[in-house]
Amino acid sequence: MIAEEIIEKLKGSLSEKRFNHTMGVAKEAVRLAKHYGGDEEKAYIAGLLHDCAKEISYEDSLKLIEEKRIEADELLRQCRGIVHGPVGEYLAKEEYGVTDKEILSAIRYHSTGRSNMTLLEKIIFLADFIEPGRKFEDIDKARKIAYENIDDAIIFTCNKILAFTINNHKIIHNDTLDTRNYLIIQKRLDGGKI
Amino acid sequence: MIAEEIIEKLKGSLSEKRFNHTMGVAKEAVRLAKHYGGDEEKAYIAGLLHDCAKEISYEDSLKLIEEKRIEADELLRQCRGIVHGPVGEYLAKEEYGVTDKEILSAIRYHSTGRSNMTLLEKIIFLADFIEPGRKFEDIDKARKIAYENIDDAIIFTCNKILAFTINNHKIIHNDTLDTRNYLIIQKRLDGGKI
Repeated sequence: MIAEEIIEKLKGSLSEKRFNHTMGVAKEAVRLAKHYGGDEEKAYIAGLLHDCAKEISYEDSLKLIEEKRIEADELLRQCRGIVHGPVGEYLAKEEYGVTDKEILSAIRYHSTGRSNMTLLEKIIFLADFIEPGRKFEDIDKARKIAYENIDDAIIFTCNKILAFTINNHKIIHNDTLDTRNYLIIQKRLDGGKI
Repeated sequence: MIAEEIIEKLKGSLSEKRFNHTMGVAKEAVRLAKHYGGDEEKAYIAGLLHDCAKEISYEDSLKLIEEKRIEADELLRQCRGIVHGPVGEYLAKEEYGVTDKEILSAIRYHSTGRSNMTLLEKIIFLADFIEPGRKFEDIDKARKIAYENIDDAIIFTCNKILAFTINNHKIIHNDTLDTRNYLIIQKRLDGGKI
């Protein structure tokens, strides 16, 4: 499916708010890919599809995980806010015909991150956080760091996600912790200031 | 070794500040054990020994882990502030003659916690945080919750540890996350308000 067809299909299945966010993420992802020498085409497709499963209810998502044997550990199934990652990967493959593994894993991990992310995974994770429609405290700082050092920006984003999740008494998935720990250890090894 | 001998040995090897903290934790642990129907004797010994390795330098701790084949995963070795847990377990066994597995694991996990903690592990984890010498924001709240609901108090403590670690750009060990996630999921299963 080419980008135009994906956009048409998304327009028919997402709310207006989600669709606008989606377009914001796709374009931000292309800007980041350009800036860091990533694959702009893949960034655009992954950005478009990152939330394709977000408006499926939690209960239906769990059913899909069960029925289609979508890979999702017990903790992930408990996290209402992030099951749309793996389910989105499944839909991207089955309903939007995506076969590229890099795009699929960028969709899968866009909410949690993971250890040792690919550039495309980093781009989608970050674009989702800083796209022009986002509003939260420190968003300007996040946008600035995003174009200075992508790893610092991801540590910053993880810190924000962790703080938000703690304050809201929600479960934190290990992958988000692993994302942050991995990058902090990397910075130490590189002699970075942490 | 009986408690009096342990205290004598600790007095000779710890700084005054650490020794005072140690006695505070041991006594707080006994109070918590009494309150929650735990083993007061074990709580006292585990409280006395929880920081027995804390004043060994990070470098020497890593050497001990290596030489004595102390169980410690890669992430734990990277966490300067928590290696004294497993090293303390080793010293408690080798230098203080502790053989009781419950006491040893309470020493091991006193800084990080872990999934599905025993009552004794919870008591030491918490006593370390709220003993009378501790001063930090919300300490009164922590002390109050500690004697109302031990699991809520541990979630509260984990949140504080996570926030502190995030703000200080330090690595967070998975065990602390697991401690919190496990208890939050438990509360959900019990129909608790989370």
